[in-house]
Order: sequence, then structure tokens, then C-alpha cells
Amino acid sequence: MRIAIVGLGTVGSGTFNVLKRNQSDIAARAGGPIQVVQVASRRLNPTCELGDVEFTTDIMAPCSNPDVDVVVELLGGTGIAADVVRSALSHGKHVITANKALIAEQGNELFPLAAANGVNLAFEASVAGGIPVIKAIREGLAANRILAVAGIINGTGNFILTEMREKGRAFADVLAEAQALGYAEADPTFDVEGIDAAHKLTILASVAFGVPLQFRAAYTEGISRIDPQDVRQAEAFGYRIKHLGITRRCENGIELRVHPTLIPEKQLIAKVDGVMNAVMIQADALGQTLYYGAGAGSEATASAVIADLVDIARAHRQNSSLGVPSLGYRADALNDLKVVPINEIECAYYLRILAKDHPGVLANVAQILSRHSINIESITQKETDEQNGLVPMILLTHRVREKDMDHVIDAIEALDDVVGSVIRIRVESFS
Amino acid sequence: MRIAIVGLGTVGSGTFNVLKRNQSDIAARAGGPIQVVQVASRRLNPTCELGDVEFTTDIMAPCSNPDVDVVVELLGGTGIAADVVRSALSHGKHVITANKALIAEQGNELFPLAAANGVNLAFEASVAGGIPVIKAIREGLAANRILAVAGIINGTGNFILTEMREKGRAFADVLAEAQALGYAEADPTFDVEGIDAAHKLTILASVAFGVPLQFRAAYTEGISRIDPQDVRQAEAFGYRIKHLGITRRCENGIELRVHPTLIPEKQLIAKVDGVMNAVMIQADALGQTLYYGAGAGSEATASAVIADLVDIARAHRQNSSLGVPSLGYRADALNDLKVVPINEIECAYYLRILAKDHPGVLANVAQILSRHSINIESITQKETDEQNGLVPMILLTHRVREKDMDHVIDAIEALDDVVGSVIRIRVESFS
Repeated sequence: MRIAIVGLGTVGSGTFNVLKRNQSDIAARAGGPIQVVQVASRRLNPTCELGDVEFTTDIMAPCSNPDVDVVVELLGGTGIAADVVRSALSHGKHVITANKALIAEQGNELFPLAAANGVNLAFEASVAGGIPVIKAIREGLAANRILAVAGIINGTGNFILTEMREKGRAFADVLAEAQALGYAEADPTFDVEGIDAAHKLTILASVAFGVPLQFRAAYTEGISRIDPQDVRQAEAFGYRIKHLGITRRCENGIELRVHPTLIPEKQLIAKVDGVMNAVMIQADALGQTLYYGAGAGSEATASAVIADLVDIARAHRQNSSLGVPSLGYRADALNDLKVVPINEIECAYYLRILAKDHPGVLANVAQILSRHSINIESITQKETDEQNGLVPMILLTHRVREKDMDHVIDAIEALDDVVGSVIRIRVESFS
Repeated sequence: MRIAIVGLGTVGSGTFNVLKRNQSDIAARAGGPIQVVQVASRRLNPTCELGDVEFTTDIMAPCSNPDVDVVVELLGGTGIAADVVRSALSHGKHVITANKALIAEQGNELFPLAAANGVNLAFEASVAGGIPVIKAIREGLAANRILAVAGIINGTGNFILTEMREKGRAFADVLAEAQALGYAEADPTFDVEGIDAAHKLTILASVAFGVPLQFRAAYTEGISRIDPQDVRQAEAFGYRIKHLGITRRCENGIELRVHPTLIPEKQLIAKVDGVMNAVMIQADALGQTLYYGAGAGSEATASAVIADLVDIARAHRQNSSLGVPSLGYRADALNDLKVVPINEIECAYYLRILAKDHPGVLANVAQILSRHSINIESITQKETDEQNGLVPMILLTHRVREKDMDHVIDAIEALDDVVGSVIRIRVESFS
């Protein structure tokens, strides 16, 4: 099978180098050699010895190269990368991509284009780097009705939260270090505000529930406002704060949301630290499974790209294409499950309320919750935490609809003795 | 696609029931319905409503039933199950099995038989229940040179060790409870002596390294001699004791061994508790990944059986068979890596030595290790642990060849002040 690599950055160079280093193992697994016949990139990459592989700076060239069976798009972004993918598919080439933004935002048009041309558009590397989680859901869990997926799917965010917890550091401080270490981009918005995670979650939801990609409907909340005292308080209650992407089958559709979340420290996913990723899946027959590994990096991501290549090569050898539908379900049997708005979801909450140190504040807060029929799991207010006559009150509630919680928070903020905004972090137990 | 289920016990009934309950989702994923046309079992199972599905007590009947495309063997064992699998393959039926003993002990004959008949013999359910770990290795990690696989692949053993640690209970005590709860068999040998784990590890090694199945060469050591004080001491050093199956590429072949193992508590696999399973894989491009979930149970195991069914159905629809080689590598490209004997492996060790409370014992022990050029990571001897004038001395060593450690242990046991046998538990850091 003859392939072209388009883009020779971090993932492109990793793909080229792993294919070369492990070529005999890969050929033995795939049933025959996978040969790189062309590399297209704006510039050469000193980590890759191209040898006699054809190199071009014409990014579009592989799309119409008659010697190429598979185009591997590793440019990223939704601009020129989209042109490459469209052109390659239209020319009857299989396409493999690591491009989460492209799949999440344009997948609904790209998959039918691939089908119309009788080729595959594979994207294992677009979610959680090298962890074969798309494969696990679409194939390994094909027996199941998937109930929920929750993932730590942005390594930068998890690194920051881990440092905040382990060393009591502030968000901005750790972010600056992550940028210095190269874990975070100069513009960290995509990572810390949850946009990158929302792209990945959108894809996970589609393969889990067999629904079209609904990126625009995802609720996204970042971690930039997480305060070290919340990390500490969560720990005191037996929880960890993780930046999770959560998608769940619910009464009226599916939930699709990325936000900081308290999870019980007993849950394995709560113990996933540093830049590592993990995806937890709840399924009706299988119960809970978890998939853990490197969510980014040159060769880790290349591992997923090449897994897609091997899948296609194995089918190619039998003159067939992949039998696995792009979104897990046959294109004509996709489900019509809409994303429910965030204020319709139901979960438990962590609230931090800054109040004047007057008697009766706690009673007033408790009364507001009681009026909305919300059960309190725990409430603490430590005099010792007093600052300028203000004492933080920390609450954990039972499950409640988000819009009811909005009303509660409005009512609490309206109390005379409460100062500033109520800090709200969602709580999930996954039990 | 028309299938027959042979054996209607725990896994057979789960398979029947999940196929029925999730039939529309499964059909949408597989590209068409998967229809159970025959069930063969010695007796009916009250949890299954067979409806108009043909039932027979003739176990061999499906093997030659012209209406059956796939025979699902869920009898277990290596007796009649082997006859069923051989007959079905010989009649040109695809076979799916959850039978670890059969694959580990007879796979080297069964896979060529399947190939000769142009059909697949699939066995995802044979390892780690519903966790799609065979798929992860053979497909998801196909880019990689796999370096090592380590797994908690027996839930009974992990339940026992977890109870011993959390509650300070003795092995026999927990085993009795596990038997009462139905987690452990009346004859627990297969579980607690590591034979079940060795079957699964043999299979994992073969798909990871592309080598023939070498069950007879596996080293197997159970957990029945683990003492609560070792569990406690391990914890004091920052380790957990887990019953691991470990297979690793080494200088002269592969290691293949099941034994109690100290692992650093920081490792995610050390935190896998209760009856849960987890498999950790070290690979050259991807680094470390971990796959966690239920390793047994009716519907969890059925999930893996049906995943194999869906794979075959997807290929079947395109008139092809699975392009994935049984052992991950093309049958004519298998590697010739032999299992190295246990005394040739290298790892670190935990030693517990019972010694008279005399001055100089510690120095004598340290000298023996020094003479064999073995570095000591830590050594403790607590007077407070004295019992009848004997004090346990606990050592953690650096990595050393097992046969050198054998000599060291002989020398230590020969010391006048040392009483009884030295307790030795292997230590792995997986870093």
C-alpha cells in the first residue's frame, strides 16, 4: 500500500519515523509493506531522513498523485487541511487524519464525501492521541448500549490541575510553566478553555451514540477560574477536580459538555495525573471500562495514525475497504439524538459562597436550597478560613437540574450577607 | 449473519440476552442483523427466553448445521469444547470462543485449521473479559514494537489481595469469603495459583510479540503464600502487591511469568482494586497505555464475544473474512522468540528474612549481597516487630538476575542467625 504524508510537523515526522523504524513488524501485521511514496510539507523536518522518498512543497500534490492509495493529513486546522482532505477523497484516496477540529466541525460533510467515493476517512488519532479509544467504542464495545463517556482529553489542562493540587500552585503560575515546558501553546485558549476537549468529545459522542457531529451544541467551560482553595476543598471532601469532557444518554437526547468536575478520588479516572489522558466509558453490558495513555506527542499520536493505516491495509489486501462505519453506526441508521442545553442537565454541585461572618447565613442558604427541594450532602464553614471578616461556606448538593441550581445561586447571591459571585463546580460520581 | 451458541451457562446466556436486548443497535453497527438460529446446551437456562430459536442438547449439532455461519463456543475447558471448535472450523464455520485454556493450550493447531478452512477463530473474550485488549494490541497498537505487557487478569486473586490490604485479613480467610460470594470456585487452584492468569498471559504474549503460544513454558506462582505482613511492609515502602501476569521482550527471547509482584503505588495499575482487571502495555512509539474493566461476568464477557461477532459480520457483509491475523502477525511472519527460563529473568526483589535478634545479622546479610554485586535499595529491621526473639528483616534490592538471587537466598538461609526460608517477592517499577 502506497501512502503520502501531508504535513511534516510533530505528528507527521513521528508517523514517518515510526513507519520507517518498525517497518518489518508493521508489514508482518498489515500483511504487506506500507510504503511512503510522497511527503508534502511547507518545509523539511530535520528529524526525518527522507532518503529517496519524493518530497514536495505542493501541499495538494498527493491528492491527485496516481501512485498514492492513502493520503495522511497531518497539517491540522480547518483551512488548507480541509482542502487536502476534500480533494484526496474526491480523487478516491483513503484519508487518515489526526485533525479533531476538522472532523468535529466538518465531519458531517466529509464522511458522506468519503462514502460517495468508496473510500475511508479514518481519525483514530484525533481523540486522546495514541489511545485506541475510537476503535474501542466502534468495535470493542459494539455489543453495548453506551450510557456515558467521560474523558480527560486535554493533557495541558490535566497537567495544570495536577500541579495545582500537588503543589498548591495557582492556575496562572502553572500555565506559565507549562508554556515554558512546551506543554501549552503561546495562546492557551484552545487547551485551557476546553475547545480542544470539546472537539474530541464531539467525536466521542458521535461514535458512542451513532449521532451526527454536533460541535456547535457543546457546552464548554475552561479551568482558568479554578482557585487553589477549590482544589483543596474538593480534596478535603474526598474528590479531585478534573477537566472532563462528558457525554451521556439522557431522557431527551444526549448531554455534551466540557467543564471542571469534582469526581470521587476512589474512581480510577480521578487518579490520572500529569499530561496523561484517560477515557472512561459506561456501557450496559460491559459496565465501566477505562482507557489510559499519552494523549499527545509525536510518536504516541503517530501510533494511532499508523493503526488506521494498518486497518486500511488489511482490508485493502482483501480488495475491500474498512467495514466499520465512520460514526460506528451505518450511515442510514444514525440516531436522531439532540444535545440538550446545559440548563437541562442534572448533576450534583459544589458551591463556594463567600459570606459575612454573621449568625444565620448558613440557615438562610440552607433554606433557599430546601425551598427548591435540593438535598445537601454536606456543608462546612470554617471560622479559621476567615479573611477580612468573610468566611467561605462550602456546599455539596445532591443531583438537581442545572436551571434550578441557577435560580438557587441567584437567590443566594441576593442575600445581604453574601459577597460576590457563588463559585459553582459540577460533581459527578459515575457510580 | 446466522449464528449458533454452544453452551448456555454464564457467558452463553449473557451473549444470548445482550444480542436480543441490543439487537437494533448491534444491527446498525454490524451492517445487518445477527440472528441466533440455534442454541446447543446440556440444559436450558431460565434466564434466557429462547422463543422460536431452535434448541438442542446435541452439543455437536451446530458444527454441521448448514444454516449456521458462526459457531460461538462457550462451554469452556479443553475437552468437548475442543471437539466443537475443531468440528465447526472443519465445516467452514467461523468460531468465536471465550475459552482461554483452549486457545493457550491448543491454539497453535487451531489457528492453522481455521486458516485452512478460510474462516476466523476469534477469542477477544478469552482475556480480561469484556476489555477489548486483544483488539487494542493486534490493531490499535499495530504501529508499535511492544516491549512489555503486565496485567491483573484474574479478578478473584485481585479481590483477595485487595481485601488483605484494605482490611489486614489473611489469605485463607478472604478466600473462604470469596467462595461464599461466588467470586472463587470451590476448587480455587486455577485462580489463586495463577493457572488461569497464565493461560491469558500466554495469549497476550502471542498477540503482542507475534509468537506461537507457549503455555507450557510459562512460570506460574500463586498468591496463597502471601502473608498480611508482606502486604503491610510493601505498603510501608510505597508499593502494592498485585498478582501480575508479565511478558516482556528481553535479550534472549521473551519473559512469560505470573507471580505476586510489588509495584510502586504511583503506577495506575497498582490502584486497580477488587475484582477488576487491567492490562498495561509498554510500546516503543505509544509509551504506556492501560486498559481497565470487568474481567469476568456474564454480560461483560458477552460484550467481547459480540464484538468478535460484529467484526466478522462487518467483513462477512463485504464477502471477506477478518483481515487481522490470529496472532497479530501474518502466520508466515511469526517471530521465533522463545520463553526464557525464570532463573534467567532480571528484576528487583523484596526479601523478608526472619533472624535472631543478634548484632551483626544485618551486616552478614549485607555482605552476602555485596559479594554478589547486588545493590540494596533499602533495608529495615524493626525491634518492635520482634516475635519469640526473632525479628523480620525486610530488604528491597536493585535489579539482579534471578539465578544470582537464588544463590544469595541460599547463602542467607545458611546463616546461623537466620531461621526458616527467606520470603521472596519480585518487584517491578514499569518506569
